[in-house]
Amino acid sequence: MSEAETGSKGAALVAEVFDDIKRSRNVPDVNNFWKYLARDPVLLKRTWEGVKETMAPGALDPLVKEMIYVAVSVTNGCQYCIASHSAAARKAGMTEAMFGELMAVVGMANETNRLVNGYRVPIDEVFERADPGPAKLP
Amino acid sequence: MSEAETGSKGAALVAEVFDDIKRSRNVPDVNNFWKYLARDPVLLKRTWEGVKETMAPGALDPLVKEMIYVAVSVTNGCQYCIASHSAAARKAGMTEAMFGELMAVVGMANETNRLVNGYRVPIDEVFERADPGPAKLP
Amino acid sequence: MSEAETGSKGAALVAEVFDDIKRSRNVPDVNNFWKYLARDPVLLKRTWEGVKETMAPGALDPLVKEMIYVAVSVTNGCQYCIASHSAAARKAGMTEAMFGELMAVVGMANETNRLVNGYRVPIDEVFERADPGPAKLP
Amino acid sequence: MSEAETGSKGAALVAEVFDDIKRSRNVPDVNNFWKYLARDPVLLKRTWEGVKETMAPGALDPLVKEMIYVAVSVTNGCQYCIASHSAAARKAGMTEAMFGELMAVVGMANETNRLVNGYRVPIDEVFERADPGPAKLP
Amino acid sequence: MSEAETGSKGAALVAEVFDDIKRSRNVPDVNNFWKYLARDPVLLKRTWEGVKETMAPGALDPLVKEMIYVAVSVTNGCQYCIASHSAAARKAGMTEAMFGELMAVVGMANETNRLVNGYRVPIDEVFERADPGPAKLP
Amino acid sequence: MSEAETGSKGAALVAEVFDDIKRSRNVPDVNNFWKYLARDPVLLKRTWEGVKETMAPGALDPLVKEMIYVAVSVTNGCQYCIASHSAAARKAGMTEAMFGELMAVVGMANETNRLVNGYRVPIDEVFERADPGPAKLP
Repeated sequence: MSEAETGSKGAALVAEVFDDIKRSRNVPDVNNFWKYLARDPVLLKRTWEGVKETMAPGALDPLVKEMIYVAVSVTNGCQYCIASHSAAARKAGMTEAMFGELMAVVGMANETNRLVNGYRVPIDEVFERADPGPAKLP
Repeated sequence: MSEAETGSKGAALVAEVFDDIKRSRNVPDVNNFWKYLARDPVLLKRTWEGVKETMAPGALDPLVKEMIYVAVSVTNGCQYCIASHSAAARKAGMTEAMFGELMAVVGMANETNRLVNGYRVPIDEVFERADPGPAKLP
Repeated sequence: MSEAETGSKGAALVAEVFDDIKRSRNVPDVNNFWKYLARDPVLLKRTWEGVKETMAPGALDPLVKEMIYVAVSVTNGCQYCIASHSAAARKAGMTEAMFGELMAVVGMANETNRLVNGYRVPIDEVFERADPGPAKLP
Repeated sequence: MSEAETGSKGAALVAEVFDDIKRSRNVPDVNNFWKYLARDPVLLKRTWEGVKETMAPGALDPLVKEMIYVAVSVTNGCQYCIASHSAAARKAGMTEAMFGELMAVVGMANETNRLVNGYRVPIDEVFERADPGPAKLP
Repeated sequence: MSEAETGSKGAALVAEVFDDIKRSRNVPDVNNFWKYLARDPVLLKRTWEGVKETMAPGALDPLVKEMIYVAVSVTNGCQYCIASHSAAARKAGMTEAMFGELMAVVGMANETNRLVNGYRVPIDEVFERADPGPAKLP
Repeated sequence: MSEAETGSKGAALVAEVFDDIKRSRNVPDVNNFWKYLARDPVLLKRTWEGVKETMAPGALDPLVKEMIYVAVSVTNGCQYCIASHSAAARKAGMTEAMFGELMAVVGMANETNRLVNGYRVPIDEVFERADPGPAKLP
């Protein structure tokens, strides 16, 4: 964003986004993530809108989406993201048994990803054939 | 494994595992992953048993588990694993709309993981309180 | 996105985005990245708009932004992204000498990141004091 | 694991694994890792058995294995794993000079991995020929 | 380094490097990174000389180099490196607006790197043709 | 490096490094890695000297160092590095049994690194006490 936007225009943008977060999530305050991101109002706005659109119920339900978020964050080792999205997943209904299985799959995938790398396994022809390729456009 | 096991005992172990894979998955042949891993029969056996236990239906259904596997593999950039587990997820019922949302969440999580890192966001107290900690043992 | 959007409404969205990419970049066709992403028109649109906003000239010039993109892609090992953003950086004026220095910094940072991890170096107090913290809001 | 197993059956499984860890390592108590993993007794058991089998003396001696564990943990930035496996490696005989060389190799490998990515270096034919490929089965 | 070097010869090497760091950077003391690395005087010396050569003004100016260092460190999640090189970048002139754009590019690159992986996008022929290949030697 | 150095001075530097690689390794030609890196003679020289110093016999023998290199490369998914350093490790005496155990440890470490992340395991006090801290200087 241009530096001009960090003034009163930036502050108004932040207030607007913070209000939308509180309303959408029905919470009295926003998390630290948003308070830090607010140093760049344009980045804050785009990130919030992207998160809101991405995490909304759709073909996948919100709990599955939160667990996928945790899987990525655990793989990358992002401590804040693991803590915040595990909490969100629990709020959305993740039981301890579900968490255990999530971790088991994440651990196993990280292990076999490396076995594949190390053994230099070529992709089976059957998987190539199953790939959808580029969009089929009219 | 000890080198002694790579002889006829090793070959028998491989045959046993390959048979179990074919039976469990109802397929005529095993994928390249298993054919390469068979260079170490003990690693092959432990990996297959771990995968079978981990990916079985439980608190999470197999489709969700396959999508979590894809999320990790995409984050790590393991081409073989992306191809094989995307195919498995489609076989288990993943539609193109579900795949699109899976990718959207994986992309967004990889982005926000780095925003958190860069802005050095401290963990909110509320997330720390929500953490279950070590096992509660009798 | 909902599956309903993959029909004619989805196709119209794709066409609109593709036109904007061609116009903005003054190119006769879009790259493979956009052709594959078009399988999910909503993700395509959000990604393109995010990229356009992010890569526009601002406090940093486009060449610096392309080199940062290359630095991340090289660190993650994304072959497609390395090839496409190195080409974009060259188009924006990156000389071979600049590329060499970019690679030298990326390599050195990846090395020292791990030395820091392995030696378990605690953050100097002076760096903590230099951190801006959360946004200063009115 | 099924939720039914988290009851008394789960507690018995945890006790059994904890006893085996203490006996195998000749220690009065288990580390935090095992205490947290005990929230999922089935995952605890499979992980412990995998670790025990993997880290046992074989074609590679335990010190080399611990140093490889440190190399991976440093590359991934897992603070707990770096601390615990560095301690284990020291217990197994790693001197400060060995640690320094371990770090030097880990740092150099992380650097050259990225130089290879950035310069898009194709694999030499001689390396392809040296690859063992899939298992040679009878 | 050989263990013999950790004695008085090692201490002299450390003193020499520390002096050069203080002189080059005009600072009264070296950072924690160098104090920990000094456990291996040879690694300390090679790392410092590499960093000094790499970060010197050249085809890229020092501020751009520091921002590239931050981009890599944020991608890898190295907390120490993020803190120290963000501070260095600010000292070299990075404004908050520049930091915001740096983060935006790093976040976006980490996101699209994964979209490319997940959609399995093949490299466009035009990017292959733009690649310089190996050095043209006389 | 400065652009001036890419001329005849650069070519002389490349020739000098290539000769040293061939002599040191007793090979008739250098690998692709060096041929590509030669596009930046200064980076080529520093990288070769760093690799030569790092991989020389010392407190760790060359085979162990090559296996550590493979462990890092497999974790990062660098295909070229996996192929070249696996070949180097085999040349230095790595048997198939050793390779299998190397892969088993690398896979296990990548798995448990993520279990630690996901379960948010705090570092045991005993590991903190075992840490050597900064260099003890006279």
